[in-house]
Amino acid sequence: MSEALFLRAARGEDTATAPIWCMRQAGRYLPEYMAIKAKADFWTMCRTPDLAVEVTLQPLRRYGMDAAILFSDIMTPLPSMGVSLRFAPGPEIDDPIQSARQVRELRVPEADEIAPFVNDTLRRLRAESPVPVIGFAGAPLTLAAYLVEGKGSKDFGRFRAFLYEEPRIAHELLEKLTVVTERYLRAQVDAGAEAIQLFDSWAGLLDKETYDRFGFPANTRILHGLSRVPRIYIAVGAQHLLASMGALPIEVLSVDWRVPLAQVRHGLRPGLVLQGNLDPTRLLAPEVEVRRAAREVLRSGRGGPHIFNLGHGILRQTPPDNVAALVDEVRAFARHDQEIG
Amino acid sequence: MSEALFLRAARGEDTATAPIWCMRQAGRYLPEYMAIKAKADFWTMCRTPDLAVEVTLQPLRRYGMDAAILFSDIMTPLPSMGVSLRFAPGPEIDDPIQSARQVRELRVPEADEIAPFVNDTLRRLRAESPVPVIGFAGAPLTLAAYLVEGKGSKDFGRFRAFLYEEPRIAHELLEKLTVVTERYLRAQVDAGAEAIQLFDSWAGLLDKETYDRFGFPANTRILHGLSRVPRIYIAVGAQHLLASMGALPIEVLSVDWRVPLAQVRHGLRPGLVLQGNLDPTRLLAPEVEVRRAAREVLRSGRGGPHIFNLGHGILRQTPPDNVAALVDEVRAFARHDQEIG
Repeated sequence: MSEALFLRAARGEDTATAPIWCMRQAGRYLPEYMAIKAKADFWTMCRTPDLAVEVTLQPLRRYGMDAAILFSDIMTPLPSMGVSLRFAPGPEIDDPIQSARQVRELRVPEADEIAPFVNDTLRRLRAESPVPVIGFAGAPLTLAAYLVEGKGSKDFGRFRAFLYEEPRIAHELLEKLTVVTERYLRAQVDAGAEAIQLFDSWAGLLDKETYDRFGFPANTRILHGLSRVPRIYIAVGAQHLLASMGALPIEVLSVDWRVPLAQVRHGLRPGLVLQGNLDPTRLLAPEVEVRRAAREVLRSGRGGPHIFNLGHGILRQTPPDNVAALVDEVRAFARHDQEIG
Repeated sequence: MSEALFLRAARGEDTATAPIWCMRQAGRYLPEYMAIKAKADFWTMCRTPDLAVEVTLQPLRRYGMDAAILFSDIMTPLPSMGVSLRFAPGPEIDDPIQSARQVRELRVPEADEIAPFVNDTLRRLRAESPVPVIGFAGAPLTLAAYLVEGKGSKDFGRFRAFLYEEPRIAHELLEKLTVVTERYLRAQVDAGAEAIQLFDSWAGLLDKETYDRFGFPANTRILHGLSRVPRIYIAVGAQHLLASMGALPIEVLSVDWRVPLAQVRHGLRPGLVLQGNLDPTRLLAPEVEVRRAAREVLRSGRGGPHIFNLGHGILRQTPPDNVAALVDEVRAFARHDQEIG
């Protein structure tokens, strides 16, 4: 059997058609997902392999996506560090971090203590999924943003201030998160993940100097140790960090919808695979518009390896048929053909 | 009397020291502001000239800022269009816009009906302020974002989807908002505003093509008609829109903290004044760090005209003494001196 399209593209092959998967492809826009969610809350779904495997496989059955993404949350490793949190529905930290004492008290668990249910889920997915399985984790900076801010925020002002006020405590916190994230992702690869994605959702709130100081070194260390599998990195609203992101030890850079792929590719090292970047709100438009927007992204993605994805997670209001149309359009698009006119 | 430092810089003079004012300089970090707010809510303060004048003048008395910014809110013109809204504490629209009928029903008031209390406030400020007074309005795209989304949102997904699903209705909505904003800002200049700032807070959520289609034409029309005074434009997280923003008919581009001023200036037309761009969270650090960060911004702002400001509004947790240190540092910085080492 030849290697899967997704893995070929993720390793740098300029494939004839683009593989496609969508961030949050297992999600609330799917009635079969909602049927499960009616019986178990999100956090229970993440921590119960039976349920996590089932919802991970749902979009593959419906659409035949080219990759499966582990159903989980970036918060998953934190309880094993001693962090108490809830989903309401976004994550809320019971005791936000403000002091050196709190950072000292954070545990640094061994790999098998971090989130064993995730490894079970991955082993089963590896056996049951017809396509490669992507594992993932939150980047230390983004996890630290939640731990300090206490919950999601428009601009994470408290966290950003903490970096400037308490840089030493911030570095200690990031150090612990780096070790845990490294162990967590290695365990995922051991359990069957054939690629990993590091989600740095809030990195784009920082200027480049601050990102280079607090985010880049941690990300580099984590990614460096995972060279057995293709490594994907994503930050959102981070178009000013492209040079730094392009210098990470990664095969694939996933980009949001703000900048066309051709423009992103222009400034980066040759051979870097781009993943993205349809604006997920485009999936709410009529099907003809979805197809048109998809072709625009596909055209912009030519000139190097491209994995089709959204610029951010699928919105829950997305009509499932529009996702089918999207997959159809991506499959039909011949990346190496010249277009006339 | 020679022309005020702020106006000289805003008209393109590469001044020897940078003028300084801060977005939201009249705000909750000041005890004298909180004393007024204890007696009147935010929306009442905006609509009562006695109170709006008083809080506008407070930071001038305390710090001797180089410009006064009208105390108001970008929502101010909307009630005159027939929009019902509340502050809770962010703006909430009672009947978010979803249909062509709702757009048709929006009134397009004459200039003197829009927000007469703002003009009263500006007339009094012009008489009482020792420094130039800046008027402002929200840009049509940003007002439309609130009108459609109904309230503030991390990513305004509903609004972005509306642009793609209902482009014609979106254009009709933007057309009405453009006419009203144009009238509103002209009235502000007639009433005494010596410069104006157009706030396009959410433009950065859109890709360049969508911004160029829905935001740029409206902004161009509004700004074009206001050439009597220096025109300032600001969007946040919009580093991918720099080329478009630099092509607006403006004297001053205000930029957020994500990209250093020297890098922003590099890509723009010569002579464009830059305003910004200290990360407001830096003002929460110890004074020595505030001063160091201010000098970094000042150094980066050399090589062309610069108005010192924050990259976003002052945070309410800001120690007032840190703002005094900031002003002191900006005043002491000789922009034309060569630094050694």
